Amino acid sequence: MTTALPSKLEQLVRGEFEDTCRRRFFFGLAFDPYGGSAGLYDMGPPLCAMKANLLTYWRQHFVLEESMCEVDTTCLTPAEVFKASGHVVRFNDVMVRDTVTGECIRADKFLEEYGEKQLQDKTLSATMVQEMQTLLHRAAGMTPDEIKATIERYQLKSPKGNPFSDPFPFNLMFSTNIGPEGDRVGYMRPELAQGIILNFKRLLDSGNAQRMPFAGACIGTAFRNEIAPRASLIRVREFTLAEIEHFVNPNEKNHEKFDKVKDVEFWAWSRELQEANAEPVRLTIGEAVEKKIVDNETLGYFMARTALFLDAVGVRYVRFRQHQRDEMAHYAQDCWDAELLTSYGWVECVGIADRSAYDLTQHSNASKKELGTREEFAEPRIERQLQRKLQKGAIGKAFGKNAGEVMEYLNTAPETACVELNGKLTESGEATITTSSGFEAKITSAMVQFDYKDVKVTGRNYVPSVIEPSFGVGRILYALLEQSYWVRRDDSAKNEKRAVFSLRPLIAPQKVAVFPLLMKPELMRTAETIRSQLLLSGVSTRTDDSGASIGKKYARVDELGIPFCITCDLEGDGCVTLRERDSARQVRIPESKVTEVVVALCHPLLPREWASVEAEFSAQLAA
Amino acid sequence: MTTALPSKLEQLVRGEFEDTCRRRFFFGLAFDPYGGSAGLYDMGPPLCAMKANLLTYWRQHFVLEESMCEVDTTCLTPAEVFKASGHVVRFNDVMVRDTVTGECIRADKFLEEYGEKQLQDKTLSATMVQEMQTLLHRAAGMTPDEIKATIERYQLKSPKGNPFSDPFPFNLMFSTNIGPEGDRVGYMRPELAQGIILNFKRLLDSGNAQRMPFAGACIGTAFRNEIAPRASLIRVREFTLAEIEHFVNPNEKNHEKFDKVKDVEFWAWSRELQEANAEPVRLTIGEAVEKKIVDNETLGYFMARTALFLDAVGVRYVRFRQHQRDEMAHYAQDCWDAELLTSYGWVECVGIADRSAYDLTQHSNASKKELGTREEFAEPRIERQLQRKLQKGAIGKAFGKNAGEVMEYLNTAPETACVELNGKLTESGEATITTSSGFEAKITSAMVQFDYKDVKVTGRNYVPSVIEPSFGVGRILYALLEQSYWVRRDDSAKNEKRAVFSLRPLIAPQKVAVFPLLMKPELMRTAETIRSQLLLSGVSTRTDDSGASIGKKYARVDELGIPFCITCDLEGDGCVTLRERDSARQVRIPESKVTEVVVALCHPLLPREWASVEAEFSAQLAA
Repeated sequence: MTTALPSKLEQLVRGEFEDTCRRRFFFGLAFDPYGGSAGLYDMGPPLCAMKANLLTYWRQHFVLEESMCEVDTTCLTPAEVFKASGHVVRFNDVMVRDTVTGECIRADKFLEEYGEKQLQDKTLSATMVQEMQTLLHRAAGMTPDEIKATIERYQLKSPKGNPFSDPFPFNLMFSTNIGPEGDRVGYMRPELAQGIILNFKRLLDSGNAQRMPFAGACIGTAFRNEIAPRASLIRVREFTLAEIEHFVNPNEKNHEKFDKVKDVEFWAWSRELQEANAEPVRLTIGEAVEKKIVDNETLGYFMARTALFLDAVGVRYVRFRQHQRDEMAHYAQDCWDAELLTSYGWVECVGIADRSAYDLTQHSNASKKELGTREEFAEPRIERQLQRKLQKGAIGKAFGKNAGEVMEYLNTAPETACVELNGKLTESGEATITTSSGFEAKITSAMVQFDYKDVKVTGRNYVPSVIEPSFGVGRILYALLEQSYWVRRDDSAKNEKRAVFSLRPLIAPQKVAVFPLLMKPELMRTAETIRSQLLLSGVSTRTDDSGASIGKKYARVDELGIPFCITCDLEGDGCVTLRERDSARQVRIPESKVTEVVVALCHPLLPREWASVEAEFSAQLAA
Repeated sequence: MTTALPSKLEQLVRGEFEDTCRRRFFFGLAFDPYGGSAGLYDMGPPLCAMKANLLTYWRQHFVLEESMCEVDTTCLTPAEVFKASGHVVRFNDVMVRDTVTGECIRADKFLEEYGEKQLQDKTLSATMVQEMQTLLHRAAGMTPDEIKATIERYQLKSPKGNPFSDPFPFNLMFSTNIGPEGDRVGYMRPELAQGIILNFKRLLDSGNAQRMPFAGACIGTAFRNEIAPRASLIRVREFTLAEIEHFVNPNEKNHEKFDKVKDVEFWAWSRELQEANAEPVRLTIGEAVEKKIVDNETLGYFMARTALFLDAVGVRYVRFRQHQRDEMAHYAQDCWDAELLTSYGWVECVGIADRSAYDLTQHSNASKKELGTREEFAEPRIERQLQRKLQKGAIGKAFGKNAGEVMEYLNTAPETACVELNGKLTESGEATITTSSGFEAKITSAMVQFDYKDVKVTGRNYVPSVIEPSFGVGRILYALLEQSYWVRRDDSAKNEKRAVFSLRPLIAPQKVAVFPLLMKPELMRTAETIRSQLLLSGVSTRTDDSGASIGKKYARVDELGIPFCITCDLEGDGCVTLRERDSARQVRIPESKVTEVVVALCHPLLPREWASVEAEFSAQLAA
């Protein structure tokens, strides 16, 4: 576990790191021969394998262990869905344009950079330091008007020194047309949530979920037309998300397994700490929920499970930052980001939000479909309910063709309005109402009577709240790469620097490299046999039958983050050499046992410790 | 293995099958509350889990066993890529419009349906039967003019009885704009090939591929704006592909592992058999390549590996159909589709094509980047090469400012032109050439001498050929569902019909269901313990702690294709009941052994046979 929270990745020289990633093709700009396309990246074989491993473990940790309902939904989405969810109107970034060059710039990021730069000035007045820190916390949530005021206040110019246009909203969804007629607008989804949420009823009814509460999950691609893609894999236009939507009764946000995670510790940077410009503090999730720092048990449960997931895949530096009130969507109850430390600073990699019943309600209204569910009370309850007794004859006689809308009003008006109306009727025998079409009707006591009655109620209909943990897969992978990167100085005379990725076996692109010490047929056969056995046991391998020296081969696989190497050598004692990457220590181990040992070292859930392998077999000095 | 090729899935009533898929949410139209969107489907939990299993095994069978380089590339693609690949101009279907209703109809599918309908008429003349069979084979490759002629020949009308418009091409790519300026056209990729192919150099140079030949692989989403989406998951607008691009020296299309697969049998429907309206025949891949029915060993190798893959995941009925010459892309050398039998007929699920060097050459020309590689000969070769000796002084004096283009002509003119020029110079001492700009130059013997010389050559540059197996993941899954579906008649008095999916453990959504026979705490604890042990061993489980009868619970999991059930019952002998889905037979097995036995039964590569479990433990009659 983390024992202190650094502010910087001390071991990382970003240029060297990027060079390693490029040289071994962890990732690179897509469409490379054409000079690339901003914000679009391809993952090469090492990162692609890491991604598959991360997602397999994500499925294990969340979908299987929590019996979630995974769905696979489409990227293409008809416009009505994102109209209802509010994305067509609100999924914007505020943009400013350089009035001379026409360059488009994302306003909040520009202001954040400005604030950070000012804060580096040690002569800055205390007032300005305060102002700049506030700017940093507030920029992401500012309206165009607030941005305009900020630009004017500090007389900001574009990077080229030109005046800015007025700030204006830019919708981040990619649009297209669906169907041959070309008249149906569609969007590439910017998140997975709507696709899961729209399956709520099917999941509940199909016997896959069985009962409330339950969670839907989805792994898939999302798209955002970022104004200024940057920071490598962090701000891109196409990316993989892994999302969970946990559907829960809004009145019962406790979680039956909360006790199992209450002692999980995390670095909490609450809204209050941020406002006070104070540092994150170490808490258990139990304390955080008890002190109401985290809104409810279910949100806390998923924060803890997220912390455990990140720890298991090898993330070293993570903090949980609570959203500012003006940073959250208006409907959100609470929201925490798991931020991972990178050379670009702390980066939001997982967002854990309580979206309330907003999306289901919106889709229910827009589609005219009932998207809620029902809870049956353990015991029937007696509830005092308003009764409305309408006299249809009197209403029909009085209002003729308008009688229908008058009755609709009287049947559906909110309880408060009925109480008020009833007061007037009791007082004066008549009162005027206005129907939805604007018709004014004079109501008399002969037309309607209101009454309260005790009713036995066995349950109630409700629209579930949704708690959403959303994982940015590319960002987590990028942060993992940076956090596990270091440089080993070669102990030979040449004193070369050699890159190492200290990735856990769970995530490493391959678990073990197998090579013959020399290109002799007998050694190559042994290597091939071991490789086949490992493949059959589900352990991925890499081979290197080039003529390079063994030291060179070790350096090549260290650079790919492969945790173990098996060298088939000449000793003739039926043994092979097994080497551990980080310590570069080796043991001699019988060929007949090596597969079993490596399988144990690479067990996805309960891996054997290297120390116990050293203890069992004779350790040698590093080569 | 298949022993006879049926023409129809006898066991399937499509309505019942669809009802089961809908009721248990295997899949359904996306955006269900909004009435769905044609050609867009969501996969529910059972099919989503099957998909993850299929892709995991695909990675094992292809990427790991063949040491392929997997990449993860983007869906969003700048227009220049698909301009170079020819998709912007040629990736069309031919469309006809109902001139009255405006409905858009895909012409080739319309003609195929027409042909099929005609062939059902038993009174059709022999000539017409021949014509209709030819129409069925040719429709997919017809030009708009040929379609127009066909419509006129048979006086075809739209489904509503109205005249058709002239046929016209409709591009199937979804387009969008990339970046905030809105001036950069992009497309959602309709296949994965270009993304892999554009990484050829990076893979070769990064040490991931190590040497030629090698294969890139990719799993991802593709998009096609189908004119008429239909046939459930078969013709959709968004789908998952798993593609391989095997890069190979065009002069060396043999495959080093071909011998390992030469005895693999398959149903081959060659171009010649189709033209003769004859049935597919059973062949080994060795025979097919030897007889040149399949173009080369590498293509044959991947056909065999594909056949093995489909067999392993549980496909029962598959045939390989060779493309007609006019059906293939103009650059393709040979192409075979693995077609799977469904209730919609034989459906292309895997395409295995030799794309030659077309894509790399096109991208090299468009991007002005060298996208080839070099082969070094084992032994240097002596090659007779044309030598051109230019006298710069004489050329400069004679042509002044045009001297440059004259020299370029003489340095780059093809060998045949040089031989001809040399003949004239030898004959008359002079000859006239025309440069690329149209300048006419009178060349004399004093300006250039041609000569042949034996040169030692150590290698040559070349652009690799690409052999592409491309797997339609949704189609394979759909065919698997249909082919493994059957209905069990309940042996109770009610004589209910109960759906069963006979899916292999490798592919089944979960491997085993674990439930207590009764809702007693002790039995529930036992079930939970077994479930935890299985999860830890990587075996996915399902539970059912509802109050339903055990027979009902078995029926529920049969319907999901789950191969095994463990029932924790009351016997008090330390045993549990293990049931196999297809036979409905059961054994009593010690609780301490059940995890180990189930893990063996579900081994992804070498599963234990149920019969051996029955032999080891006492079999009981079916419940």
